[in-house]
Amino acid sequence: MEASQLSDLLKKNKTQCENLLKRRFFYTNSFEIYGGAAGLFDYGPPGCALKAQLEDLWRKHFIVFDEMLEVSCPCITPYSVLKASGHVDRFTDLMVTDLSNGECYRADKYLEDVIDCALSTLEGKNVADNVNAKNAALMQLGRDELQKLQNVVGNMTLEDVDSFIQQYGIKSPQGNDLSKPFPFNLMFETTIGPKKDQKGGTSSVVYLRPETAQGIFVNFGRLLESNGGKMPFAAAQIGLGFRNEISPRNGLLRVREFLMAEVEYFVHPENKTHARFHEFKHVSLNLLPKDTQERGEATLVSMTVEDAVNNKVIANEALGYFLARTALFLEKCGILKEGLRFRQHMSDEMAHYACDCWDAEILTSYGWIEVVGHADRMAYDLKAHSQAANVQLNASHRYPEPIVVEKVTPTYNRSLIGKTFKDKNAQLLRILDNLSQNEALQMEQELNATGQGIVKGDDGLEFVVTRDMLSFKVVKSVVCEETFTPSVIEPSFGIGRLIFCILEHSYKIRQAQKDQEERTYLALKPILAPTKCCLLPLSSKDIFNPLISKIQRHMNDLGLSYKIDSTGASIGKRYARTDEIGIPFAITIDFQSVNDGTVTLRERDSMEQVRLQSEEVGDVIADLIRGRTTWGDVTKAHPIFTQQEV
Amino acid sequence: MEASQLSDLLKKNKTQCENLLKRRFFYTNSFEIYGGAAGLFDYGPPGCALKAQLEDLWRKHFIVFDEMLEVSCPCITPYSVLKASGHVDRFTDLMVTDLSNGECYRADKYLEDVIDCALSTLEGKNVADNVNAKNAALMQLGRDELQKLQNVVGNMTLEDVDSFIQQYGIKSPQGNDLSKPFPFNLMFETTIGPKKDQKGGTSSVVYLRPETAQGIFVNFGRLLESNGGKMPFAAAQIGLGFRNEISPRNGLLRVREFLMAEVEYFVHPENKTHARFHEFKHVSLNLLPKDTQERGEATLVSMTVEDAVNNKVIANEALGYFLARTALFLEKCGILKEGLRFRQHMSDEMAHYACDCWDAEILTSYGWIEVVGHADRMAYDLKAHSQAANVQLNASHRYPEPIVVEKVTPTYNRSLIGKTFKDKNAQLLRILDNLSQNEALQMEQELNATGQGIVKGDDGLEFVVTRDMLSFKVVKSVVCEETFTPSVIEPSFGIGRLIFCILEHSYKIRQAQKDQEERTYLALKPILAPTKCCLLPLSSKDIFNPLISKIQRHMNDLGLSYKIDSTGASIGKRYARTDEIGIPFAITIDFQSVNDGTVTLRERDSMEQVRLQSEEVGDVIADLIRGRTTWGDVTKAHPIFTQQEV
Repeated sequence: MEASQLSDLLKKNKTQCENLLKRRFFYTNSFEIYGGAAGLFDYGPPGCALKAQLEDLWRKHFIVFDEMLEVSCPCITPYSVLKASGHVDRFTDLMVTDLSNGECYRADKYLEDVIDCALSTLEGKNVADNVNAKNAALMQLGRDELQKLQNVVGNMTLEDVDSFIQQYGIKSPQGNDLSKPFPFNLMFETTIGPKKDQKGGTSSVVYLRPETAQGIFVNFGRLLESNGGKMPFAAAQIGLGFRNEISPRNGLLRVREFLMAEVEYFVHPENKTHARFHEFKHVSLNLLPKDTQERGEATLVSMTVEDAVNNKVIANEALGYFLARTALFLEKCGILKEGLRFRQHMSDEMAHYACDCWDAEILTSYGWIEVVGHADRMAYDLKAHSQAANVQLNASHRYPEPIVVEKVTPTYNRSLIGKTFKDKNAQLLRILDNLSQNEALQMEQELNATGQGIVKGDDGLEFVVTRDMLSFKVVKSVVCEETFTPSVIEPSFGIGRLIFCILEHSYKIRQAQKDQEERTYLALKPILAPTKCCLLPLSSKDIFNPLISKIQRHMNDLGLSYKIDSTGASIGKRYARTDEIGIPFAITIDFQSVNDGTVTLRERDSMEQVRLQSEEVGDVIADLIRGRTTWGDVTKAHPIFTQQEV
Repeated sequence: MEASQLSDLLKKNKTQCENLLKRRFFYTNSFEIYGGAAGLFDYGPPGCALKAQLEDLWRKHFIVFDEMLEVSCPCITPYSVLKASGHVDRFTDLMVTDLSNGECYRADKYLEDVIDCALSTLEGKNVADNVNAKNAALMQLGRDELQKLQNVVGNMTLEDVDSFIQQYGIKSPQGNDLSKPFPFNLMFETTIGPKKDQKGGTSSVVYLRPETAQGIFVNFGRLLESNGGKMPFAAAQIGLGFRNEISPRNGLLRVREFLMAEVEYFVHPENKTHARFHEFKHVSLNLLPKDTQERGEATLVSMTVEDAVNNKVIANEALGYFLARTALFLEKCGILKEGLRFRQHMSDEMAHYACDCWDAEILTSYGWIEVVGHADRMAYDLKAHSQAANVQLNASHRYPEPIVVEKVTPTYNRSLIGKTFKDKNAQLLRILDNLSQNEALQMEQELNATGQGIVKGDDGLEFVVTRDMLSFKVVKSVVCEETFTPSVIEPSFGIGRLIFCILEHSYKIRQAQKDQEERTYLALKPILAPTKCCLLPLSSKDIFNPLISKIQRHMNDLGLSYKIDSTGASIGKRYARTDEIGIPFAITIDFQSVNDGTVTLRERDSMEQVRLQSEEVGDVIADLIRGRTTWGDVTKAHPIFTQQEV
C-alpha cells in the first residue's frame, strides 16, 4: 500500500474506529461524569492492558537488550533543576488572548487554523465554526502564498507572530482584537512542604516534570559509577510527563499528562559510535532529511542506516543505531511500514537543548504525527547541571597508551593584577583561565608584539593587560586519560501517542460473507494484545466446567490473561466480540472435548482453527505469543478443524 | 524465629543494609546533586527493576488471577471530584508551628517525639537533639502514664491536641511557644489550562491525587458495562499517589510521591461474599483484632480465614478473601511470616470513608509498618459522586424468581398542598417522597388518629399537614430485580513501602568461612530479582566470547535480564558482587566450556553449582524463576560441580 492509500483508509475508518475504542473502553475522557477534563484520558481495561504490554515490550526491546540502566524518578521536580535545564525560561508556547472575553489561544495553532480556513474558503469548502473565516486580508493571498505561510507559521518567533497578526489584522474567533503574543510556560507549578516561600523565593516551588530525562541527567554520577565507570552507556526511564497544553486536542495525541519512555545514551562527544551498530546497519529506513524539506519537498528517501551514516544524512552511528532500533520496535508493535517515516528537524524547529533531531512520525487519521523523538542533546544538560549544582558531571576515557599533550598554561603576576584591577581582579583571572588554547596563544603573540592586550569582561567591561602581568607558555605533559562531558543521544517515546497509532493501524474490516454482516476487528500483535486468549464453552452447561477450570489453572500458571465468554450468544457472535478487542486466540470447548479432552484453537486474523489436546493448548499459545512458533507451524502439527457443532 | 528476634535482627542490620542499598543504587534521595528533596526518592537500576518485577507480579497475582478490570487514570484530578470524595475538606493532618521562627510540625508525630523523649530521659538514655527534652510537666508523669499517652496521641482530635499542649506546656524544639493546632491539607494543588479562576472559583483548580481509588469510582458505570452488567466484580489500578507530608522521614516509608496498587471490589452491601473464598479459606493469618488492642494488648491470634469469618473477627467473606490473597502475595514476595500481622483499625483511627479496616503490617527496623490497607469503604464514594455529579452509580441484581414486595405509596392532593404551602410546596413534597416506610406508616396512623401530622422541613421549618392533603397506602407489586449502590472492599498496596520491607527481609549475612570475610547478600525471590542471571567468563580472554554471545542471545529470546561480569576479579569476588544485588543465578564459562559447550550454574542461597549444557541453561533458569522446577530438582538432574578451575 502507498502512504496516500493508507492515509485515505485511516480517514475513512476514523469515526468507526473511535466508536469501537470508546464502546469497548480502550480509553475515554477522564472524569466524564463531571463533564470531563480537557487533555486527560483514562485507559479502560483493554487500553490499560495494552499499555502494560507495550511498556513491557519496550523494556525488553531497549533496556534488557542493551543492558541499559533503568531509573525511576519522581514527577515532582524542584525549581532549581528545571531552572538549570532551561525549562523555567524556555519551555513555553506563544499565547494570544481575546481582549474582549479573555479566551486564550495557542498562537501557532490558531494561526494555522485561520490559514486553513482561508485555504478552505478559497476552495469553496465549509469552514469550522470556531475560526474567524472572514479574514479579508488573508483571502487576498493566493493558494500558494497561503500554503507557504502554513509551512512556516509553526516555527515563528514572538516578533514574527506579532507582525503576522498586525499585517493581516487577525481577530479572535468572535471577531475581537487579540493581545500581543506572549510566552506561556507549559509546566504545572505547585509548592512542596508546609511552608510557602515568602517574597518570591523558589525553595518550595516545584513543577511536574515536562520530560523524564532530567531525572537521568542529575543521576549521571551514580549511573556512571553503577556502570563501573565505563563509557559509553545508556540509561532509561519510563514514567509520566506533564504539559499544561493551552488547547489540548486530537484525542490521545495532545494531552496534558502522558506516559513517556526515554533513553539517554551517554557517549564521547567526538566518537558517537555504538558497539552493536553492525548488527543493525542493514535496517532500511524511510527518511525525510532537512534539506529535502527546505526545498519544500516531502519525498522520502529509503536507505539503510549504514548508507545514511556513511553519506552523512544521519550525523553519526549512535543516532543511526537508535533510529534502526526504533524502526524495529515499531514494526514489532504492528505499525505499518508505509505509515512510518523518520523526519529530521529543520534548524529553526529544534528544542533549546538539541543540535540534531529525527522524529519517527506515524501516519494517522490526523496526518503524520511525531511519536518518537531522537535528539542529539550534546552535553547541554550535563553542563547546565554541572554549573548550576557546582558538581562535576564528567566521564573519563583511558588512552590505550599514555600520550604527550601540549597545553598552554598561564603564569600570572598576581600582585600586579590585584593592584591594577582591584575588585575586578577575580573576574579577570576567571576569564583568563577559561581562554581556549587558540585565544591564549593569540594573546601571547599580541603581548609580545605590542606589550599589551585587551580582555573582554562581563557586561561590556574591557581589561587592558600588559606584558608584565602574565605570560602563556606551552607545557608538555604525559596524560593517561582524558576527562570529558559526555554527549547524549536521546530516543524519547510518547507511549499514549504510540497506543493511538497502534490501534488505528490495527483496525481492520472483514468483508461481509454470505449471510453475515461486515465485521471489524483489531489485528493487534499477540505480544501486545490486552487479553491473550478467550475460553468459549459451546454452551453454559455445567459439563464444560471441569475442563474450563483445568485450562484456567494452566493459563494462570503461564501468566496468560484470558476471558471466559459463556454467554448464550452464538459461537460466531462470540468470536466477533473477541476479535473486536484484538484477542488473538480462542479456545472452544465442545461436546467432543468432554469425551476426549481435545479443544479447538482459533487464530484471529486467519480465522483458522486446529484441534489439539487441552493439556498442550496453553503452551502452544505461550509459544505463539513469544514468537517461538508460528500459526503456520501450528496448522501443520495439528489437524485443521472446520466447523463447530452447535 | 520469633517476631521479637526478627525485630532485633532487623535493627542490628539496619545501617549495614541501608549502606548496601545506597552503594548499589537501589534507591537514593532525589536531586542529590542539588542537596536533595525531602520525601522524594529515585530508584536506581536494581531498585527500578525490582519495582517493575513487583508490579508485574502484583498484576498477575491480583488482576489476571481474578479477571479484574484494570484502569489507568491521570494523577491530575479536578477539584469537583476530590471535593465530593471528602478529600478537599478532610484529607488533613494537624499541624503546629513555632510562633517565633515559623517552623512547621506534624502535631501527632511531634507529640510522639516529645513523649518518647520524656520516656527515654526517665530511662536515662540519650535523647535526640531536635526535641525539647526539658519538659518538666511531662517528666513528672510516670512511665505507665507516658506509655498510655503515647498510645492515644496518634488519634487525637484538634481539641485534644490543643489541650495536651496547654496542659503540659509543650514548646517547640527551640523552646518557643507553639501555635494552636490546625488542619493542613496534604494534597498538592495546582491549576490547569491557561486561565486561572477569578475570585476564588474552582474550575481551574486541580490536585495531584492522594489515592488511585477515585479514578475507579468515577468510572464505575463504564466498568459495570464492561463487565456485562454482572455483579460482583473488581477493578484495579496501579499508579502514583501524592501526599504533601508535613515532615517526611524514615526513607521509603513516608514519602511525598509513591506508587500504589489498589483493588476496588464492588459487591452487594448485604451479601459481601466472594466466589473463590472456598479456595483460600484455609489460609492462616496472624490477626490483631481491635478488641485486643482496646484491652491494651498486642498478642496475635492465629486462625484460618474461615474461622475468622465464622467467628465474626473478620466482618465478611470478601474482606477475608482479600486478607488471605494479600498474605499469599506477601509470602511470594519473600516477606517473612513472623514479620507479618493483620491489625484491625480501632474505631477512632478509621479514614473518613471506611467502616472497617485491616492493615497488613510488616516488621521493619522502624517497627511494624502499614504496607497494605484493607478497607470496607461501604457505598461512601459511589454515593458521594452520584450526588455531586448527579449521575446514577448503581448496579442491579436480578432475583432468581420475581418477588412480591409491599411498598408504602403516597397519594397527594397537590392543589390543596400547593395552595396551603405556596413556595414551600416543593420542599414538602420532596420530604414526603423520601420518608422511610416506617415514617410513612406512622404518619398515616397519626393522620387517622388526629386528622393532622407534623413534617419537619429544612432549617427548622415545620409543616402541619392534614388528612385531606395526603394518604399513604400499602401497594403490592411484582419486582424482578433490585437496584442498589454497591459496597466497596479495597485492598490498597504501598509499593514503595513493600519494596523497603522486601529488601530488609531479604538482607542476609553469610558467616565468614575459612580465609574469607563475612559477606552480605540479598535473598530476593528469583521472580522479583532485578537481574535474573549473571554471566561470568573465567577470564576476559577472547576464547569465551562466542559462547557468551550465544547464551546472551538465548537470554534475550527468553526475556531474561542478565549482567556480564568479565572483570579480572576472582570468581569468588564476582559471586559476592552478584549476591549483593540479589542475582539468583550465575552461569560460569570456564575452559571446559570451550571444549564441550557445558557451563556451570550456581544458585545464590545454597551456593551450590551444577554443570549442564549451555543450550539448556536458559530454559532451566526460566523454569526456576517461574517455579516450574526447583533447585532441588536441578541438582538431581545434573551433576553437582564443586570447584572452579582458575
